[in-house]
Amino acid sequence: VIRVALFGAGRIGTIHAASVGAYPGTELSYVVDVNSEAAESLSAKFGARAVSVEEALGDPEIDLTMICSSTDTHADLIEKSARAGKAIFSEKPIDLSLERVRACLEVVKESGAKLMVGFNRRFDPNFLSLKEQLASGAIGTPELVTIASRDPGAPPPEYLKVSGGLFRDMTIHDFDMARWLLEEEPAYVYASGAALVDPRIEEFNDLDTAVVTLTCESGKMAVITNSRRATYGYDQRIEVHGSGGMLSAGNVLEHTVVRATEEGQVAGKPMHFFLKRYAAAYHNEFASLITALRAGGEITPSGDDGEKALRLAEAAFESLKSGSRITLS
Amino acid sequence: VIRVALFGAGRIGTIHAASVGAYPGTELSYVVDVNSEAAESLSAKFGARAVSVEEALGDPEIDLTMICSSTDTHADLIEKSARAGKAIFSEKPIDLSLERVRACLEVVKESGAKLMVGFNRRFDPNFLSLKEQLASGAIGTPELVTIASRDPGAPPPEYLKVSGGLFRDMTIHDFDMARWLLEEEPAYVYASGAALVDPRIEEFNDLDTAVVTLTCESGKMAVITNSRRATYGYDQRIEVHGSGGMLSAGNVLEHTVVRATEEGQVAGKPMHFFLKRYAAAYHNEFASLITALRAGGEITPSGDDGEKALRLAEAAFESLKSGSRITLS
Amino acid sequence: VIRVALFGAGRIGTIHAASVGAYPGTELSYVVDVNSEAAESLSAKFGARAVSVEEALGDPEIDLTMICSSTDTHADLIEKSARAGKAIFSEKPIDLSLERVRACLEVVKESGAKLMVGFNRRFDPNFLSLKEQLASGAIGTPELVTIASRDPGAPPPEYLKVSGGLFRDMTIHDFDMARWLLEEEPAYVYASGAALVDPRIEEFNDLDTAVVTLTCESGKMAVITNSRRATYGYDQRIEVHGSGGMLSAGNVLEHTVVRATEEGQVAGKPMHFFLKRYAAAYHNEFASLITALRAGGEITPSGDDGEKALRLAEAAFESLKSGSRITLS
Amino acid sequence: VIRVALFGAGRIGTIHAASVGAYPGTELSYVVDVNSEAAESLSAKFGARAVSVEEALGDPEIDLTMICSSTDTHADLIEKSARAGKAIFSEKPIDLSLERVRACLEVVKESGAKLMVGFNRRFDPNFLSLKEQLASGAIGTPELVTIASRDPGAPPPEYLKVSGGLFRDMTIHDFDMARWLLEEEPAYVYASGAALVDPRIEEFNDLDTAVVTLTCESGKMAVITNSRRATYGYDQRIEVHGSGGMLSAGNVLEHTVVRATEEGQVAGKPMHFFLKRYAAAYHNEFASLITALRAGGEITPSGDDGEKALRLAEAAFESLKSGSRITLS
Repeated sequence: VIRVALFGAGRIGTIHAASVGAYPGTELSYVVDVNSEAAESLSAKFGARAVSVEEALGDPEIDLTMICSSTDTHADLIEKSARAGKAIFSEKPIDLSLERVRACLEVVKESGAKLMVGFNRRFDPNFLSLKEQLASGAIGTPELVTIASRDPGAPPPEYLKVSGGLFRDMTIHDFDMARWLLEEEPAYVYASGAALVDPRIEEFNDLDTAVVTLTCESGKMAVITNSRRATYGYDQRIEVHGSGGMLSAGNVLEHTVVRATEEGQVAGKPMHFFLKRYAAAYHNEFASLITALRAGGEITPSGDDGEKALRLAEAAFESLKSGSRITLS
Repeated sequence: VIRVALFGAGRIGTIHAASVGAYPGTELSYVVDVNSEAAESLSAKFGARAVSVEEALGDPEIDLTMICSSTDTHADLIEKSARAGKAIFSEKPIDLSLERVRACLEVVKESGAKLMVGFNRRFDPNFLSLKEQLASGAIGTPELVTIASRDPGAPPPEYLKVSGGLFRDMTIHDFDMARWLLEEEPAYVYASGAALVDPRIEEFNDLDTAVVTLTCESGKMAVITNSRRATYGYDQRIEVHGSGGMLSAGNVLEHTVVRATEEGQVAGKPMHFFLKRYAAAYHNEFASLITALRAGGEITPSGDDGEKALRLAEAAFESLKSGSRITLS
Repeated sequence: VIRVALFGAGRIGTIHAASVGAYPGTELSYVVDVNSEAAESLSAKFGARAVSVEEALGDPEIDLTMICSSTDTHADLIEKSARAGKAIFSEKPIDLSLERVRACLEVVKESGAKLMVGFNRRFDPNFLSLKEQLASGAIGTPELVTIASRDPGAPPPEYLKVSGGLFRDMTIHDFDMARWLLEEEPAYVYASGAALVDPRIEEFNDLDTAVVTLTCESGKMAVITNSRRATYGYDQRIEVHGSGGMLSAGNVLEHTVVRATEEGQVAGKPMHFFLKRYAAAYHNEFASLITALRAGGEITPSGDDGEKALRLAEAAFESLKSGSRITLS
Repeated sequence: VIRVALFGAGRIGTIHAASVGAYPGTELSYVVDVNSEAAESLSAKFGARAVSVEEALGDPEIDLTMICSSTDTHADLIEKSARAGKAIFSEKPIDLSLERVRACLEVVKESGAKLMVGFNRRFDPNFLSLKEQLASGAIGTPELVTIASRDPGAPPPEYLKVSGGLFRDMTIHDFDMARWLLEEEPAYVYASGAALVDPRIEEFNDLDTAVVTLTCESGKMAVITNSRRATYGYDQRIEVHGSGGMLSAGNVLEHTVVRATEEGQVAGKPMHFFLKRYAAAYHNEFASLITALRAGGEITPSGDDGEKALRLAEAAFESLKSGSRITLS
């Protein structure tokens, strides 16, 4: 049995707790949250206990920590978990500062700890099917990856101010998907964008609408189009154009009904809420982690994947400011 | 060069005239219509002449007559053309009376004339692709044909009163498609239906909404669903379920645009007007006729196809009245 | 808290157990199964106990029994539960004999027990959306319901022999959907069909491919097309044609990926396994039951719904044998 | 009657000749081609005459010249037509040199001639529907235009060498579409790309795979993705993301049939041949030109549209070479 200590009893923590509960051979032992009521209530449902960070990490029976607390605590908890000899799952990002991420990963490396970073989209059944078909050679060599990634609505400016900015907060998922599908590191980053949804966020030098082009040395490219607002739902599509064809993963709709009337043929919208849209992905993600821990193999997405995606986000901001493409070393 | 005399300068005659004009090695020589203005004007466009039936049939240079006049003239013009030694294209139906059809086809047979009956849907690129895939064995043996065939709107009761009724006027196309796809003659016909669109047509024992089931001796079946009113456009879909899979031909839409907003995702409607929906079919139909005439082979859909479809229409009316299935000899 | 005793720890019982576990304010107290290992193991996962029928029904704390055991035990367990004063959920069918069903429902009625029959498809998010749009008047009055319902593959003849036959075992779901959507009882039933998938099942007077037409006094109709074999997956589609438009609920696909190559554009198949295809439906079904029990209102689908669907199945068999449509009283 | 002289009796000239023939109130009077056989044969079909440039332009009865000859003759023929007082339709591009284009347009301006440049895609029914919905405010303010434009297969390197390069030869259509949909002139151009389809074309400093980002002063953007090879057909899609929703125009498929088998659900491919894919567009283009000539209003796409698209193509090449975005004055 793999025993789990969960840090963070919020929305995403609750989802991971359910995955632990449902997955054979795993057990939720501890829940840690500053909100003790949330910790207690989540614990009760799965026969776990609400404890402190120290208690959870001090128990040698704990195999795995799952870090679902606020972003500014990730790096610390990763380091503490690593030093306590635990395997680690951390929600993305490790930290908003590339320097801090690097220091943290140094600690992970020294400790020899296993770390998965929660780029959940890699585990979405649709994107997974696209990746498998790509890997099987179904469309030859990939040449051009197109990612449309648009949120249903923007969080309030107050939240956005501390989010690290569009590229670190939202596009970072798309950078990870692009790297995963290109299977080659981008060499150049060019970003263009503006605050078209809400001009207030321009005040703190952020943007809400963007186009980012990644170019590899081989000539392969990826284009990401982002918006903080898609009135029709959570727009999440990926397309890979290759030497032998094209793969495209479309949106997941609320339902399959089409209503045909004089007004046209009206289909359902893309699912609106990211936790519902990616419900299967979270479940698959946990299954993949447990399978990898049991097999003793490598774990992906790794800390390195987290760092590289953040590096692309920084480069995108640099490009936006300079108006030039940024060359990655 | 194949020289054509056209009977009927109306809507459908104009379409066939254009096909003659566009097709290599064919020439429109005469147009015959009681409306002499229409005949003159159509002639002018293609360098033809407006003449009488007798003149047209009396010219030994004429190879082919195309009968696009009103339904009650079809059988007579087919017989006259056959006796004059012409190849014949006739719009469907040959006649509304099965007896008259049989007498007419007897004349055609005796004269040895070649006759194509205008079941244009066999030449629609979509249904043609379905048929070709079926014939290639792509889904094994067909078992169940489903035809949805619904007009955008009903003609006025006055027209319907002389139309021969739903099964002879509208379903007849679907009977032909069912026979074409089943490749086995139906042995049983069961029909159910009502006047749901316009109760007035019940007064002359007709209906506007129907379900017809055709069953073959082998157990293969076809189901046809009809309505005289589809608010969303001209609904023309065919599905064949076979031992190895399913083929479905969907509607042809006005355009490919999808509008995604808070209201849903709105696609275009099925094309509304049958002459536009089946524009390519009319063109292919003429090409097929000319090709067959040149090759000297058999011509389909034949007079026999016209008769058999009408026989099914009669059986459907019998079934509707008796509430029982009708056994075809 | 609503306390549940579960009869049957098999595939479908496990699914309902998980729904109880996940739903707020409900608790799984007992699991009953002749296979004591299965009962123990399922109990362990949810803190329940494996007991006998008598123990479970004898506990006054139990509010609800969920009957997921084999078909031949349903009627007995419903009657016992009713007499013990429990609310009852029973998987369909109540029994394969209409007489037995009626006797059982008499007991339920006398005891005043609440009973839901497990026609899970009414709770599928797609069909539910179709029903809601229909109820909202989005397409006016329904006129023609078309149901395509085809299993990926047939069970072995041995199973089919005791299944009650196609109409009682498989079409019964479609009869329920048709009644639910027509909102008027069918007055006439006509069935046609054959053993096209596996001729062996003809030996025990069953069939595997069918078309059933239901006609109401008002003229509204429903057509059901069934096959025991759909090579492309579990084919479950519903279409309602109304005076103001059409609603169609398409299949749920394995994934949203389309692969475009020289061979064509290849999309995913309909989900193959019914428990996965209808996973959300089972969950919604339980939620609807609990909501209704708490609100004290009527429960649907009711025992009466179970009886009426079975009555249609019997009529379909009668029609098949006689070749005539059957008039329902 | 509007009388037309046609320059060029090749593939595209033949299509325009047919449009003249079919359109009421227009007449094809002359065909000019160095290949006199082609000129004669095309003339014969429409009752025109094969003559020299001088004869055609010297006839005061000619209202309109249609220039469908090779690219290097366009500017000369436009100038000659303008000086002869004719209205002019010219296939794109006016010339491959921006300087030559400007000189030519100067002549047109001085002469007061009306000129339409053949950006046929503006007249495609699908893109037209998208544009109309956009103009009606259906999705609010456009923010992000995405154009996928990929040819089925690359011409031989010999052709490409004299084509002016990818951006002038192929992307120029997309530049025009972007300008048309953004309704604001791009201020910055950034291009990235490579020779991934055929490395030989790198030898003459061209590319076959590209991503171009256009950014307006307001922050609106357009992204174009190009490839000279799409194994699945002619890929022509446009998407506009706006403040109130999204419009997307999908590909036009060969047929509407879907084949569902164990292998998946296989739909038709995008139409392969550009003349067939855009057949309706060519027809609408001519209708629009005649309507505008009759109404005496402005003609679009204008010479200015031709020049501006070419300017974007040049900027894209500059950006590709420098690796920086180019600021347009």
